[in-house]
Amino acid sequence: MPRLFYSILFYLAIPVILIRLLWRASKNPSYACRWVERFGFVPRIPIDQKVIWIHSVSVGEALASVPLIKALQERYPTYRCLVTCMTPTGSERIKTIFLKSVEHCYLAYDTPDAVSRFFERVHPSLCIIMETELWPNMINGCDKRDIPVILANGRLSLSSAKGYKKFSYLVRPMMRQLSWVAAQSGDDAIRFSQLGVNKEALSVTGNIKFDLIIDEALREKSTVLLREWRGPESRPIILAASTHRGEDEIILEAFAEIKSKLASVLLVLVPRHPERFNQVEALCLSNGMKVGRRSSGSIEPSLDVLLGDTMGELISFFGSCDIAFVGGSLVPTGGHNIIEPAAWGVPILSGPHLFNFTEASELLVRSGGMIICESAQWLADSCIQILKDDELRSKMGASSLRIADENRGALNRLLDLVDQAILR
Amino acid sequence: MPRLFYSILFYLAIPVILIRLLWRASKNPSYACRWVERFGFVPRIPIDQKVIWIHSVSVGEALASVPLIKALQERYPTYRCLVTCMTPTGSERIKTIFLKSVEHCYLAYDTPDAVSRFFERVHPSLCIIMETELWPNMINGCDKRDIPVILANGRLSLSSAKGYKKFSYLVRPMMRQLSWVAAQSGDDAIRFSQLGVNKEALSVTGNIKFDLIIDEALREKSTVLLREWRGPESRPIILAASTHRGEDEIILEAFAEIKSKLASVLLVLVPRHPERFNQVEALCLSNGMKVGRRSSGSIEPSLDVLLGDTMGELISFFGSCDIAFVGGSLVPTGGHNIIEPAAWGVPILSGPHLFNFTEASELLVRSGGMIICESAQWLADSCIQILKDDELRSKMGASSLRIADENRGALNRLLDLVDQAILR
Repeated sequence: MPRLFYSILFYLAIPVILIRLLWRASKNPSYACRWVERFGFVPRIPIDQKVIWIHSVSVGEALASVPLIKALQERYPTYRCLVTCMTPTGSERIKTIFLKSVEHCYLAYDTPDAVSRFFERVHPSLCIIMETELWPNMINGCDKRDIPVILANGRLSLSSAKGYKKFSYLVRPMMRQLSWVAAQSGDDAIRFSQLGVNKEALSVTGNIKFDLIIDEALREKSTVLLREWRGPESRPIILAASTHRGEDEIILEAFAEIKSKLASVLLVLVPRHPERFNQVEALCLSNGMKVGRRSSGSIEPSLDVLLGDTMGELISFFGSCDIAFVGGSLVPTGGHNIIEPAAWGVPILSGPHLFNFTEASELLVRSGGMIICESAQWLADSCIQILKDDELRSKMGASSLRIADENRGALNRLLDLVDQAILR
Repeated sequence: MPRLFYSILFYLAIPVILIRLLWRASKNPSYACRWVERFGFVPRIPIDQKVIWIHSVSVGEALASVPLIKALQERYPTYRCLVTCMTPTGSERIKTIFLKSVEHCYLAYDTPDAVSRFFERVHPSLCIIMETELWPNMINGCDKRDIPVILANGRLSLSSAKGYKKFSYLVRPMMRQLSWVAAQSGDDAIRFSQLGVNKEALSVTGNIKFDLIIDEALREKSTVLLREWRGPESRPIILAASTHRGEDEIILEAFAEIKSKLASVLLVLVPRHPERFNQVEALCLSNGMKVGRRSSGSIEPSLDVLLGDTMGELISFFGSCDIAFVGGSLVPTGGHNIIEPAAWGVPILSGPHLFNFTEASELLVRSGGMIICESAQWLADSCIQILKDDELRSKMGASSLRIADENRGALNRLLDLVDQAILR
């Protein structure tokens, strides 16, 4: 009954959703492509092809799912993976990484008819949802068709849990329909259980983002980049990764302060969203910085800021810097993947908003590998201290690497759950 | 012209403001008292009495102004201090601390007529505004009457500065009318200058909250309290001070975890707002805790949680604990006075939202006296570690005390400005 009410509301909201889609398309034209998929008109998969369906909301979850999907392809060669997402940037990334080795489309909006069409066309045998984003009709559709649902790398921040609790009539039945919830941490597990997930369905597997593999090719690329960026002057390099609107100002304020103490320092600034590349470049210029673009291929030795305006390269940048700041944390976004710089053994700086990474950030901060900074001044002071003190820098790097290494293993625990679901 | 427009809007908003006042009064009846003062009908001060007017928005600013006001009373015995505030809790505190030694009333709403009446009735020779809250008509009223305005302990967070910038037509002339801005930190000073404060009017005096004096009477009271709370079992004591709605849940979750490791630990829980005392008590009970109230005078040895439901005692509690958590920091309030526990030399824990105390928190965290925790688990882990490790505990305490001691002096710098203003 609450789900019926929810579905009616969803139908009523569709004009608004379409207007929002158009508005987004005006800023990022790829939102206008393949919109029929959002109503369930997705490409058909031949009916005799068995399908494992993995849903990743956006880029972060898509990247986290890569090792999982590669392992699934190896383990279950007779199945084909379907990877869905909600955003064009997520879609781009999925296509670049997997090429034609997986099926890919947008997830349908959560109305009963769109969901039906989606299931009819892709007929999955198993549904794996990455981290977050549960849709009542979608989950109910799985339940009705006897498709097991695994929430992989499940996380639920305190505030999301509070939001869910307000709609517990709708959320509770949905949570009970989940076959397995593989929670990132004990805190997440407690919150899922409070929202109605069955005790037998709950386990704490840890965060599969720790199961990141940095291969030789990547290492080589990073070494080459690092040499190029350091230049003959042997410049210290600060990477500011995945920055959001409002963060770049703080980063640039801190950077001006750092430059006044360490003139040769280079800032590699990588905004999270491509549609902001031009704005951020203009901001750097208005702050009196000399800016270059990574996409130009070359780097002049006189640059102050290198704008990382390419896609999919960030992981290698973490290996080409002395300090990595990870964004989405000075504004209340909840942080981005701080495990990637940890896996490279780089000292990490972050803002205070880390609610999507509380466990990893606790491990990193308490080990000494990461420092939380609350202001431009604080960021500047920390950078200057770390850049000037070689011992501190290598100690922080070693700590972050140790945390990254010690916490691997979630992927195998998750694959065990998948085995159970497929073989049941 | 923008100020005229602002005044018209303010008049139009008065019905809404009155409804909000009534709504607040329904939760805290003292909001219904002395409401005529908010329209400028404040008690008259004899016209031949010279007046220094100090405005403190609420409790935090009122407490910060105590050493300043005491110094002013000593320096300028022919002047009488008028202390205004906006909230009933601020008003209570002012009356308790100063008894009849100062004049006190609410600040008038910022409409031209209320402001006129206010000035006519209290005719100040000097206006000192504590920290924040500048009202265009009020500042303009000072300017018109040639009353110097000092913004003391001035702070301006990044987000407030952004808010002000949106109304720069209104804000810029007001900022230019300030005679002196004594900023807490360089960051604050830069932001004030960007908003139009004259360079000559700007100085960085530091934070007068560091000029806190813990006298012998207070020390004795704390020692007695500590002995009582420790009891024969010599219980470890965690103080959670100035907690807000949404924080108590996290504190209690952490406390349950701590208790599972250190059974004898006592939590002293002090909500920031008296109207929440009963709610928080109920929350503790529903979490299965045995709760007592400080106001009852006695403490049973079997209590898990002691609810600090008295007013004005918090400062002594900081001297009666092993660890002090300071609230308003796990929710986006921006933190409360972390300098008070530092002055007692106590290890400090805080949530991540510290935007009202960025400089003090940077000093404390970088010295090792304070730890920022982002989750219940993190709080619990930190408490357990600190309580178990005597050396760490005394090291953290010594660091926080050192920071408190090293940063005194802002009060004297501020008093120099007052001298200039009075003697000019």
